[in-house]
Amino acid sequence: MDIKDYMENVGRAARAASRETAKASTAAKNAALLAMAQAIRDGSAGLLAANAEDLAEARANGLDAAMIDRLTLTAKGVESIAQGLEQVAALPDPVGEMTDMKRRPSGIQVGKMRVPLGVVGIIYEARPNVTADAAALCLKSGNAAILRGGKEAIRANQAIAACVRAGLKAAGLPETAVQVIETTDRAAVGELVAMPQYVDVIVPRGGKGLIERISREAKVPVIKHLDGNCHVYVDAAADPAKALKIVENAKTQRLGTCNTAESLLIARPVAVALAPTLCAMLTAKGVEIRGCAETQALVTNAKPASDEDYYTEYLAAIISVKIVADVGEAIEHINKYSSAHTESIVTEDYSHAMRFLREVDSSSVMVNASTRFADGFEYGLGAEIGISTDKFHARGPVGLEGLTSQKWIVLGDGEVRA
Amino acid sequence: MDIKDYMENVGRAARAASRETAKASTAAKNAALLAMAQAIRDGSAGLLAANAEDLAEARANGLDAAMIDRLTLTAKGVESIAQGLEQVAALPDPVGEMTDMKRRPSGIQVGKMRVPLGVVGIIYEARPNVTADAAALCLKSGNAAILRGGKEAIRANQAIAACVRAGLKAAGLPETAVQVIETTDRAAVGELVAMPQYVDVIVPRGGKGLIERISREAKVPVIKHLDGNCHVYVDAAADPAKALKIVENAKTQRLGTCNTAESLLIARPVAVALAPTLCAMLTAKGVEIRGCAETQALVTNAKPASDEDYYTEYLAAIISVKIVADVGEAIEHINKYSSAHTESIVTEDYSHAMRFLREVDSSSVMVNASTRFADGFEYGLGAEIGISTDKFHARGPVGLEGLTSQKWIVLGDGEVRA
Repeated sequence: MDIKDYMENVGRAARAASRETAKASTAAKNAALLAMAQAIRDGSAGLLAANAEDLAEARANGLDAAMIDRLTLTAKGVESIAQGLEQVAALPDPVGEMTDMKRRPSGIQVGKMRVPLGVVGIIYEARPNVTADAAALCLKSGNAAILRGGKEAIRANQAIAACVRAGLKAAGLPETAVQVIETTDRAAVGELVAMPQYVDVIVPRGGKGLIERISREAKVPVIKHLDGNCHVYVDAAADPAKALKIVENAKTQRLGTCNTAESLLIARPVAVALAPTLCAMLTAKGVEIRGCAETQALVTNAKPASDEDYYTEYLAAIISVKIVADVGEAIEHINKYSSAHTESIVTEDYSHAMRFLREVDSSSVMVNASTRFADGFEYGLGAEIGISTDKFHARGPVGLEGLTSQKWIVLGDGEVRA
Repeated sequence: MDIKDYMENVGRAARAASRETAKASTAAKNAALLAMAQAIRDGSAGLLAANAEDLAEARANGLDAAMIDRLTLTAKGVESIAQGLEQVAALPDPVGEMTDMKRRPSGIQVGKMRVPLGVVGIIYEARPNVTADAAALCLKSGNAAILRGGKEAIRANQAIAACVRAGLKAAGLPETAVQVIETTDRAAVGELVAMPQYVDVIVPRGGKGLIERISREAKVPVIKHLDGNCHVYVDAAADPAKALKIVENAKTQRLGTCNTAESLLIARPVAVALAPTLCAMLTAKGVEIRGCAETQALVTNAKPASDEDYYTEYLAAIISVKIVADVGEAIEHINKYSSAHTESIVTEDYSHAMRFLREVDSSSVMVNASTRFADGFEYGLGAEIGISTDKFHARGPVGLEGLTSQKWIVLGDGEVRA
């Protein structure tokens, strides 16, 4: 197979299909999503068999347990893929929404219309459910999609792709509206991210290494999700009970998610009162404390934190702790060390809350809430294609709206420019 | 001068300044803009002297008349620069605006806050007024700016830069919030577009060659403005009087602007009635007609149009004309040949208007209005940093809002995730 030719064909077909998906009716898009869900349910046995082959090969190749876990499909997992498609069908259609229409002195009315981006390329690791999720979000937002999943999941991905195509066909939409790349050759990724004539945006879903590589090579915009080095700042005016609850939830509810807190900042005036309590709670939950000198003086089991610690997304039962003078130093520390994902202040002070909200330069900034809320479902987006740690185009959880743009529309009655 | 070191220092200073501009009060930003305007007026003589030196060198180097024209500052031009700064001061401050706050089932309130992009790099040709315009828009939107103007305008640009710094200083803002690059070495541009750690977005303002080169080299997002190959489609249900008025204005009000119509499409059912009238009007205005075979049969002085003509932004007294079957063929033609800048349909038919609005994939789509309205001022943005022909982040005229992003904010009362 000539990869360049193959990808050129995939790209050209996607661009053509994107003209159809852009103008597809809400009814047609929803019909396709529901038909996909039905095809997934009907094809469950075949899907599980394909996945079993992938798993056998993965085990033979000695893949680690975490990867095997992500790769594994169960009957329940297949049902949840089908339900995910139905949930996207139930979301409002963002395409065509007209907003902000204003009459201008010239007589024209000017406003905006929400439109698809065009062709979205999604590159992800060996998680077969992403194939259906990503297809659904791209289609609902009126985009064509080119999906490239991890090579370990190639058989399950192709089986899901067949169900997706069946759904598109049943609804009278082009089957090329969602294409799952059939080759496992890595060169296909290099081509995909360098075809601005066919691809409007790339969404990489996976580890930092994958995302950095794609950002480096891409000739098209990338919706990037890098680290989640999230902070909770316990202000001098914090309610101690809320602080305890929020720190506990933010750090320990799940250790391995990107919105898990990795660093705890405590205002000096309440450090003596709160640092020991907060750290004792974390220690009791099995979390290792790495603190500054002041933290170590207050918390006997605290190990020393290096500068590197404050930059680190542990994704593990470790937290860095620092005593800071006030909300100003907390903001300064966060804007230096954080990965601009999600930060929360615990405070009852209005001015401190407003200053934190305004000055912390992260994609989600919270007052008196757990960082764990930074999530498309929790925010009411209905679904999420990823969480952007960039500022351009979309920040934070990206749902259907993040896969669209707005064009200007002008409604006139024969006006001309003077 | 080591260009790499120099640009590294400029970038680092801009990043630091951007933290200050992001949190600057509306009052401080406006005070800086008004002080800049005053400094420009007070420094008028010096500015004109610097410009005279630039002009003398430009003439000695044999620059063409159009470039000399763009480079030339007059006393009136200086006053209009000062007024431009005052107009930006009068615009509403977009930074900090909180919108879409919604209460979620968990109890948290989720919404968005508008925030600056950070550091904006602007690369432009030899038009000294852009130095002040760009500085004003970046500052008002809370960004730091790095400006790189054409080398022919270096003395005037540095004189304006001194006024900008004086204004910043008077308002207590860092003078590094707007830096005008002091070297004319082209390597500085290469460095500027490849410092993602310091620069968040590049806005090139200039010819297609400049923009293509920058897009190729850039390692940061670029707000691109390529061609304006704009269309007027006269539908079968067009009001002939509106058609005549709109085609005349769109093509002939100004020949050299990006929102000037370059191509006229006419629906076949009205071609016999309207093509001769429309083309006679254009011919009378000195516009050369290049048409398809059907156009040539109806319009005796029409020259043949090649496929290349339909792709061309003439920026001259030439128009391409094509007879199409209906609104469907018009949309198809436009989505193939246009540069996705601005297109207008002339029609009294509701369904045709709605279909055109929805399916034409351009940054501005109009009904019964001249393409010449595609402009930040006409749209009510108050000012314009450029017109984006991209879909990502911003489409069409880009004002203050296009220089900002939205972060998520969460207001809680101790909520944690279940």
